[in-house]
Amino acid sequence: MVTNSKRRSRVKTALERVRAEDPNAGTRGRLIDAAISTFAAKGFHGATTRDIATAAGMSPAAVYVHFSTKEELLYTIMRDGHTLARDLVRASIATSADPTEQLYRAIYNFTMWHARRHTRARITNYELGAISPDHLTEIRRLRNEINALMRETVENGVAAGQFTTPDVRLTVAALLSITIDVTRWYTESGPTKAEEVAAHYGLLALRVVGAGDHLPRVLADA
Amino acid sequence: MVTNSKRRSRVKTALERVRAEDPNAGTRGRLIDAAISTFAAKGFHGATTRDIATAAGMSPAAVYVHFSTKEELLYTIMRDGHTLARDLVRASIATSADPTEQLYRAIYNFTMWHARRHTRARITNYELGAISPDHLTEIRRLRNEINALMRETVENGVAAGQFTTPDVRLTVAALLSITIDVTRWYTESGPTKAEEVAAHYGLLALRVVGAGDHLPRVLADA
Repeated sequence: MVTNSKRRSRVKTALERVRAEDPNAGTRGRLIDAAISTFAAKGFHGATTRDIATAAGMSPAAVYVHFSTKEELLYTIMRDGHTLARDLVRASIATSADPTEQLYRAIYNFTMWHARRHTRARITNYELGAISPDHLTEIRRLRNEINALMRETVENGVAAGQFTTPDVRLTVAALLSITIDVTRWYTESGPTKAEEVAAHYGLLALRVVGAGDHLPRVLADA
Repeated sequence: MVTNSKRRSRVKTALERVRAEDPNAGTRGRLIDAAISTFAAKGFHGATTRDIATAAGMSPAAVYVHFSTKEELLYTIMRDGHTLARDLVRASIATSADPTEQLYRAIYNFTMWHARRHTRARITNYELGAISPDHLTEIRRLRNEINALMRETVENGVAAGQFTTPDVRLTVAALLSITIDVTRWYTESGPTKAEEVAAHYGLLALRVVGAGDHLPRVLADA
């Protein structure tokens, strides 16, 4: 049996991975961080392995010890990003049996990840066209898992009489859009803290599924 | 005085520009179309003027007759895209004096543009980091106009007692995110027509501003 405290400890672990200052310690991690900033500045196609090596303070030859191609670096960033996002949504849903609470927490934590790690998350979400067909299949599998978790939550909310929607698929697309698009506009230097965006988007998500009446209860409990 | 028929004719003209099969006729337009497909395939930094010329069936020298740099091509795409989007939102709002109707139509038409022209709209929205500081100032001015139009509509709805929101700025950010993110996932080969996405997102937008009760009236009138 999964107790509430076990559930909370699971989501805490997933959140700690998001909050950790240096999620990719060591040489491999330094290379991944360098690749993220280089891809962000020049795009995947415009960035060379030499650019990434320079940003990491290494020689191009040293890069190849860890990653055989530039594409493998991009794939690793996307795979790790999608895996973390999937785990975060899953852990958020596991904190409660109530669809309204599940949705609020999933959107809150998913938004936090996209705001706190906006450069990493932007590359994770927007460079699908640049990876190999095999790698794309793997990334699509992870994306489908995230979609399925959200879809199940919305469907459970509809079944429980808490949510109403004329189209679950498009509603889930919109919920994911609100959070993913944070990576396009959010900056630390802007007027809003990540927590404020996450809390507001949690509320908007409940409105989107027609669960406005449940807001005060979730807020009191969050 | 602006009559209702004049208002409707204005939004019709803006919509016709979106629906037009070939919005950039002539050599200059062929180059812009070629640049859009080349930037989409290789990213701005990865695309060369030669790639764009080849895609347009022209010589690189012929490109320079129309655009002095690759950046000028990108800026032209972004300026035209943002201008069209701004005109479309403005014309949609001008069709009615009722904030609920204004918001529904603005989101419907804005979503239509992002779905129908998803490649053009993706480049318009995601390559801000690649243009010159002067050009970025001009694009930011257009973006601020779109934001101000949406913000004014939401504020008018709150003042009229039709909308409620704890944070207008973040609510407008979420409304724009839902529509702009369509360019990331929408394809003509998917299961949903652009009109269906636009209609569903129009409804979700009204839910986002807490105007769920006004839905049937807007639907009957749309």
